[in-house]
Amino acid sequence: MLGMREPEVYGSMNLKEIQDYTSSHFVEKKIDIEWYQSNIEGEIVQKIQEVAQRNDLKALIINPGGYTHTSVAIFDALKLLNIPIIEVHISNTHKREEFRQNKITTRASSSTLEGFGNKTYILAIQSQLLN
Amino acid sequence: MLGMREPEVYGSMNLKEIQDYTSSHFVEKKIDIEWYQSNIEGEIVQKIQEVAQRNDLKALIINPGGYTHTSVAIFDALKLLNIPIIEVHISNTHKREEFRQNKITTRASSSTLEGFGNKTYILAIQSQLLN
Amino acid sequence: MLGMREPEVYGSMNLKEIQDYTSSHFVEKKIDIEWYQSNIEGEIVQKIQEVAQRNDLKALIINPGGYTHTSVAIFDALKLLNIPIIEVHISNTHKREEFRQNKITTRASSSTLEGFGNKTYILAIQSQLLN
Amino acid sequence: MLGMREPEVYGSMNLKEIQDYTSSHFVEKKIDIEWYQSNIEGEIVQKIQEVAQRNDLKALIINPGGYTHTSVAIFDALKLLNIPIIEVHISNTHKREEFRQNKITTRASSSTLEGFGNKTYILAIQSQLLN
Amino acid sequence: MLGMREPEVYGSMNLKEIQDYTSSHFVEKKIDIEWYQSNIEGEIVQKIQEVAQRNDLKALIINPGGYTHTSVAIFDALKLLNIPIIEVHISNTHKREEFRQNKITTRASSSTLEGFGNKTYILAIQSQLLN
Amino acid sequence: MLGMREPEVYGSMNLKEIQDYTSSHFVEKKIDIEWYQSNIEGEIVQKIQEVAQRNDLKALIINPGGYTHTSVAIFDALKLLNIPIIEVHISNTHKREEFRQNKITTRASSSTLEGFGNKTYILAIQSQLLN
Amino acid sequence: MLGMREPEVYGSMNLKEIQDYTSSHFVEKKIDIEWYQSNIEGEIVQKIQEVAQRNDLKALIINPGGYTHTSVAIFDALKLLNIPIIEVHISNTHKREEFRQNKITTRASSSTLEGFGNKTYILAIQSQLLN
Amino acid sequence: MLGMREPEVYGSMNLKEIQDYTSSHFVEKKIDIEWYQSNIEGEIVQKIQEVAQRNDLKALIINPGGYTHTSVAIFDALKLLNIPIIEVHISNTHKREEFRQNKITTRASSSTLEGFGNKTYILAIQSQLLN
Amino acid sequence: MLGMREPEVYGSMNLKEIQDYTSSHFVEKKIDIEWYQSNIEGEIVQKIQEVAQRNDLKALIINPGGYTHTSVAIFDALKLLNIPIIEVHISNTHKREEFRQNKITTRASSSTLEGFGNKTYILAIQSQLLN
Amino acid sequence: MLGMREPEVYGSMNLKEIQDYTSSHFVEKKIDIEWYQSNIEGEIVQKIQEVAQRNDLKALIINPGGYTHTSVAIFDALKLLNIPIIEVHISNTHKREEFRQNKITTRASSSTLEGFGNKTYILAIQSQLLN
Amino acid sequence: MLGMREPEVYGSMNLKEIQDYTSSHFVEKKIDIEWYQSNIEGEIVQKIQEVAQRNDLKALIINPGGYTHTSVAIFDALKLLNIPIIEVHISNTHKREEFRQNKITTRASSSTLEGFGNKTYILAIQSQLLN
Amino acid sequence: MLGMREPEVYGSMNLKEIQDYTSSHFVEKKIDIEWYQSNIEGEIVQKIQEVAQRNDLKALIINPGGYTHTSVAIFDALKLLNIPIIEVHISNTHKREEFRQNKITTRASSSTLEGFGNKTYILAIQSQLLN
Repeated sequence: MLGMREPEVYGSMNLKEIQDYTSSHFVEKKIDIEWYQSNIEGEIVQKIQEVAQRNDLKALIINPGGYTHTSVAIFDALKLLNIPIIEVHISNTHKREEFRQNKITTRASSSTLEGFGNKTYILAIQSQLLN
Repeated sequence: MLGMREPEVYGSMNLKEIQDYTSSHFVEKKIDIEWYQSNIEGEIVQKIQEVAQRNDLKALIINPGGYTHTSVAIFDALKLLNIPIIEVHISNTHKREEFRQNKITTRASSSTLEGFGNKTYILAIQSQLLN
Repeated sequence: MLGMREPEVYGSMNLKEIQDYTSSHFVEKKIDIEWYQSNIEGEIVQKIQEVAQRNDLKALIINPGGYTHTSVAIFDALKLLNIPIIEVHISNTHKREEFRQNKITTRASSSTLEGFGNKTYILAIQSQLLN
Repeated sequence: MLGMREPEVYGSMNLKEIQDYTSSHFVEKKIDIEWYQSNIEGEIVQKIQEVAQRNDLKALIINPGGYTHTSVAIFDALKLLNIPIIEVHISNTHKREEFRQNKITTRASSSTLEGFGNKTYILAIQSQLLN
Repeated sequence: MLGMREPEVYGSMNLKEIQDYTSSHFVEKKIDIEWYQSNIEGEIVQKIQEVAQRNDLKALIINPGGYTHTSVAIFDALKLLNIPIIEVHISNTHKREEFRQNKITTRASSSTLEGFGNKTYILAIQSQLLN
Repeated sequence: MLGMREPEVYGSMNLKEIQDYTSSHFVEKKIDIEWYQSNIEGEIVQKIQEVAQRNDLKALIINPGGYTHTSVAIFDALKLLNIPIIEVHISNTHKREEFRQNKITTRASSSTLEGFGNKTYILAIQSQLLN
Repeated sequence: MLGMREPEVYGSMNLKEIQDYTSSHFVEKKIDIEWYQSNIEGEIVQKIQEVAQRNDLKALIINPGGYTHTSVAIFDALKLLNIPIIEVHISNTHKREEFRQNKITTRASSSTLEGFGNKTYILAIQSQLLN
Repeated sequence: MLGMREPEVYGSMNLKEIQDYTSSHFVEKKIDIEWYQSNIEGEIVQKIQEVAQRNDLKALIINPGGYTHTSVAIFDALKLLNIPIIEVHISNTHKREEFRQNKITTRASSSTLEGFGNKTYILAIQSQLLN
Repeated sequence: MLGMREPEVYGSMNLKEIQDYTSSHFVEKKIDIEWYQSNIEGEIVQKIQEVAQRNDLKALIINPGGYTHTSVAIFDALKLLNIPIIEVHISNTHKREEFRQNKITTRASSSTLEGFGNKTYILAIQSQLLN
Repeated sequence: MLGMREPEVYGSMNLKEIQDYTSSHFVEKKIDIEWYQSNIEGEIVQKIQEVAQRNDLKALIINPGGYTHTSVAIFDALKLLNIPIIEVHISNTHKREEFRQNKITTRASSSTLEGFGNKTYILAIQSQLLN
Repeated sequence: MLGMREPEVYGSMNLKEIQDYTSSHFVEKKIDIEWYQSNIEGEIVQKIQEVAQRNDLKALIINPGGYTHTSVAIFDALKLLNIPIIEVHISNTHKREEFRQNKITTRASSSTLEGFGNKTYILAIQSQLLN
Repeated sequence: MLGMREPEVYGSMNLKEIQDYTSSHFVEKKIDIEWYQSNIEGEIVQKIQEVAQRNDLKALIINPGGYTHTSVAIFDALKLLNIPIIEVHISNTHKREEFRQNKITTRASSSTLEGFGNKTYILAIQSQLLN
């Protein structure tokens, strides 16, 4: 149901553990989560373009990491989607370096979520289950 | 449990309806929610200072509206707290006017959440209930 | 008919005198003028929100004084109105300090009028009487 | 009585119609209005220099159009005058492109008036008739 | 003799203790100190406007806190005074966040004093007693 | 007790007179004041480095004059000290040219004091005598 | 068919030669090319306004030369057209002085073409002949 | 003869269709066109480095998409070439977001061509066939 | 020998008087001075282009007035010359408004001369007579 | 012992020759050098993440080429390391284009070394051998 | 009669030769020229302060070299003078590096003169001899 | 062989110790090292000018300390040299205050070396011994 990317682990869990922690939370709800991880800007662009051509996904949750601040290419790819896009960051980037205050990809997202640590992906998914 | 402020309604519900919608969601969980609303920067500062002197609150959810971009005074007040601060915005401000890209209060928050419309406050509260 | 605010007097008349001078000008025309004055940003926001819920007003004339350059909150409130908004300044702010060259609230106004001194409010009202 | 310039028509009337509409408004008041129109920055400069050498004019109403944002030459010419200068714009330029937020000529004007459409010149003249 | 405002306490004393500490220092000198505190920008503006209409005050000591960096309204109000204005900050703001390096109200003050902690108000008063 | 520098005299007294005026004020208190004056950035740096190696000084009062806005070298030298540093300016530099709003040395000072004219150095010394 | 302007010759041909070279290229295609050249910003504005009132033109090819970077007036005039506008530059301005990186008129053009030297106008015309 | 890249399709044709449309246009002219497409910045860099080592190519046509505004790496690679480089964009980027006004790769190109939609690549190739 | 332009008179003499004063100074030296004056940017551009095609001139003295700060077109024209270009300003523009600190045409001049009032043109000519 | 990357060759040697030249210099010292080269930002990120999980490396020497100025992703990856990071550039980038003056990755390095041409890597390694 | 400073020689003559060349030019006119040269910012400040206390000087000619762009201290010293100040530069600094476009000392000068090479000082002196 | 300057000691060694440590490293190689240290910008300028007139030096190693970021005068002096210039900094300045990111003198250096602590000067000398 959800495509994802997570380049760096800022909390006590690594990527695998966060994925398990997140998946286990939704185990009863019969939700299909697709995970995707890449460090390569162009591969992420390509993945988003693929997502744009599928119609079985309900939402895209994306953590663009450092590319948030520089990638016009990811911005352009996200513009192709017509499902909700939730951009997430494990830490609150507003408290960090000045060069993180300039954001590009966020301008193409439906909503954002920052600084919730390990709970980040669970909240992002919950946001799509509320009615 | 939570102090709040909501100056403008961007979705289909007004402030009262959002509060009811949010409260009804947590009715079984026996959570105490305190709502506070003011348009006046200084009153919000004062409220936060009061919150800083209480020890019965688990978290502060704040929607600083337009003051997000200008209020050093609210920033200073938030710095006094040692409970989680979740800054929320009903719309995704990153998609809006250029002058909204400069954020002050957000630098004092633990985490942020933008663009989830009516679900905003429910998600913010859920973020504190996860374990 | 018109809501107003005037925080500082730059000419020879004080606020009361300008109000009398303005009112007397329209005495024969049977125009109802409502005056409102506050130094508090949040109260002005609230007043505008009230104006947004009435339907007996023809226009809003507003002098945001120093808040012109900083108030995203007033900007957001003005966006709620669907009557003409005339922003006025008693002096021509373009001739003054550099930090007055950045304007926020003006971007939400229908029209502006600066530097006409005591005649400011009369002209603003006249602009709505022309046909 | 008034020198004028109007490079672009933003409302439903063209330049000729606005001139007629304006003139007809003052037909009883026996006011002499001189109209002048040019697209050429240097000719406008020259016209203003001529105005500076006459002493039969009561005020200058000027619509510098696109030159508002760039013309140091018009700014310098306006500085020569010692009659009131009313800078007018048919639309409210504060709501438009970012490069229109930088204003040069306006710093040499006595007062400004923006966004009143076809009524613009009538209001500008009225501002000089009030006593 | 002196109007004051102190929004945040940065040292070991709270506002009340600083006031007592300051007052006790001048107890022999028979100096009348008037204290005023508000978190609300508009109320501070109003207070300064009142000060402008009195003639029994020798000086105004003001700690604009976070409003130092944003308040054109307080700047405008201070411009009305013709007694000395001493702007004070308990901490040295030049060592703090980048957004505190932009100062508005300070441009309307006669003199400033930063980073003297609890001694701040005593020094400010002493500055007016020297001859 | 205090090292000092004063490059320009902005009030009615010259440097020598200010020194005498300041010294006479503390004549009963048996305070040792060391004065040092130089127009040369590098000599001031050197003096501060000497101060850093002595342990008989209670505080450094410094008036960096025009170097306030440009000297990274003095900033670096001041960082070596572990006694209080009081940066003083005879005029309130915040009211002056735009290029004076950028301050370098001030970021290395404990506290600052501006715009007190001839009383400047007396206040700076008094700030160290309060207890 | 096409209005044109070419203020400076950067290649080996002068304006006349470029016109001949361009025209000869289309001699068989029975295309009517109208050439217009002026160094005067206002005359170019006027020409564009005339073009806006004709309906026998298929496209406008414009080389605004130095005015590209400064002319809000030409920008405003171009906005009046509803035929394709092709802005051309004989050299690639992106490789030149920093002040050429700010472009105004280009924001009103349909398409642009830079750095093709003598072939510039031929390509611009070809772009309108392709189907 | 030409290396190419096209990351996003802005018109009615997709990448394959544009390639066919372009190729069919030159079918009689016996021109060899090599197409290359990648979303990955580093692969594009590598491709350009390969091009730099071949001597059978007449020109490089490149559409750097979002990398136009950020890629110093592609800029560096393009600097290695000594054949003409034509940078193309399907839309006119000067009419789009502010962050697209900053261009890096364009400074290394011989010429540019923007906003010609499906005809873009045909024009780029034609520019090399003119003599 | 020298082409000139003088848009505004800042001293006690008008343009005619300055020309006479200048000419009379060189009456014995048998120097031919050609004066040219225009307020129109494009005419100045044209004049410079004419100068570029003559070979009987020793130098160009130019006072671009307000165009100094904005005219890329005059900059481009000056680049065509291969005789000395002396840019002159009657007042010292460095002491004036901030927007005069940005200079375009000056970057194409051989030398500059500012703030010498009525003597400006005499000095400019003398600079070419020294050997 | 050392991981490396070298995207472009600025001197007379190509990458292979520089590697050989560097290796031969340390042939007697029995130092193990691991070379790694990639043009792809994400692969470099990944390589650094791998380095972060090994404990047999003494230092990382990195030449981020054009990514130096844009890659927040590499910056984030470098932050994971706790061995010395030496960033190297074959040319002195401070003498080059303005857009190279903004550096991101360099803020995460222990030390830097620029402009030593072919000797660059030898010096970087020597810096780790000194004791 | 004139104090001077010249830190660098840009033309074919060295400092001594320029001084001789300049002096020889005025040998008949019985003008006393005092030369002063220093590389040290503070010494130049001191020299200017001495000049401020003498009343036998008619003008100050100063070449602040690199300090032009950075020295607030020299700016402050020049402000003390009430004789004409002519700032000179041997080259036209407007054609040079971007960081030379910011000027501080020039704002305190009466007039400026740039780019006249060896003739610079002669022209500066001549400017004071004209009547 | 090498001129040097070291204004501040950031590591555990003081200037004398670093000099000894450096010299001892090259004791066998019979290299002549000349040390020079000054805090005064102008003296450093003078020293560099002297170096420019000698022809027995192989290279200049310079640590401009705080002057790196502000000294156009040192930049100008370095431009006179035609031996290699190695600018060194004991700490990596890219990790420090924002105002250190602007560098002037570095643009005149051949190569740079930052953040190698006590080994800094040894590496700088080694860079000149490699062949």
